[in-house]
Amino acid sequence: MTDNILSAEKLAAQQLSVFLEQKGLTISCAESATCGMIAKLLTDRAGSSAWFWGGVASYANEAKARILGVSEELLADPERGPITAECACQMADGMRRISGTDLSVSVTGIAGPSGAEPGKPVGTVFLGFSSKTRPTQAVRLCIESSDREDCRSRFAAACLTLALKYAKGETIIDIVSF
Amino acid sequence: MTDNILSAEKLAAQQLSVFLEQKGLTISCAESATCGMIAKLLTDRAGSSAWFWGGVASYANEAKARILGVSEELLADPERGPITAECACQMADGMRRISGTDLSVSVTGIAGPSGAEPGKPVGTVFLGFSSKTRPTQAVRLCIESSDREDCRSRFAAACLTLALKYAKGETIIDIVSF
Repeated sequence: MTDNILSAEKLAAQQLSVFLEQKGLTISCAESATCGMIAKLLTDRAGSSAWFWGGVASYANEAKARILGVSEELLADPERGPITAECACQMADGMRRISGTDLSVSVTGIAGPSGAEPGKPVGTVFLGFSSKTRPTQAVRLCIESSDREDCRSRFAAACLTLALKYAKGETIIDIVSF
Repeated sequence: MTDNILSAEKLAAQQLSVFLEQKGLTISCAESATCGMIAKLLTDRAGSSAWFWGGVASYANEAKARILGVSEELLADPERGPITAECACQMADGMRRISGTDLSVSVTGIAGPSGAEPGKPVGTVFLGFSSKTRPTQAVRLCIESSDREDCRSRFAAACLTLALKYAKGETIIDIVSF
């Protein structure tokens, strides 16, 4: 019975996939906290190779710097670090620079159970969006959950949902829960 | 009730994770057909940042060449192409070169429903294994399934299971079903 009920992240992936397919737009993704989940969700769709280029699961800071070109100085700065809007933007821009896709998205956050920082509880995530036609932007969300799996699923659902709005040219604003 | 029953790929990821954690070995992954699934599975474990470096979801051939350094000539060759042991080895070696991890694994295959080639039906996959201490090797499997989701889950389960054997120094041989 549950096979017919799509989870929020699967539904969001499906809606974005259909849009990209219809518009002939390509996408790539740079993921830290979700670490491959968005790449997997977007390629659940048969024929996704027409519009999904690939992704980087940049879990270690070294991966963010070495593959995506995120500033090492930013990553090492104790006042900023990888869980920032700046890092999310650099990840999305870096991914788009490597891939040449129309659109790139990024995720960097704290899925827990450890890793919380002052002012950044478990559930905090920055989602980045980069495109050929719009300025790069990042959104900060805080998911009200301390469950690692739940956080990651909701980070992915939020990223995919907002990516569709971004791809459509709609305004996306900072929201505190999702 | 089903929450307590681990799928084959989750169980394989858990067993490999525990081994890497205990031995202090690091890993990275280069995925085409599974496209992020292995990276996601390995980071389901809290504290995985101690041993999981990151991964590349190299879906497009361009991603395999540009990020992992897979030979463009190999990818373009109609007699060989990306669904080969050679490509799996180059993906795993390329991933280990970028990351510097002790171990890298790779997946390149045909999850369907389209993409079958002469002699390579849907369900065909090449899994690559690269390490600091053993020669690089690839294994060819053929999953008896025409379901995309099922193929991808079983590709991931096979890769993670064989990665554990490879990491332990055990012999891994070509097997035709999994």
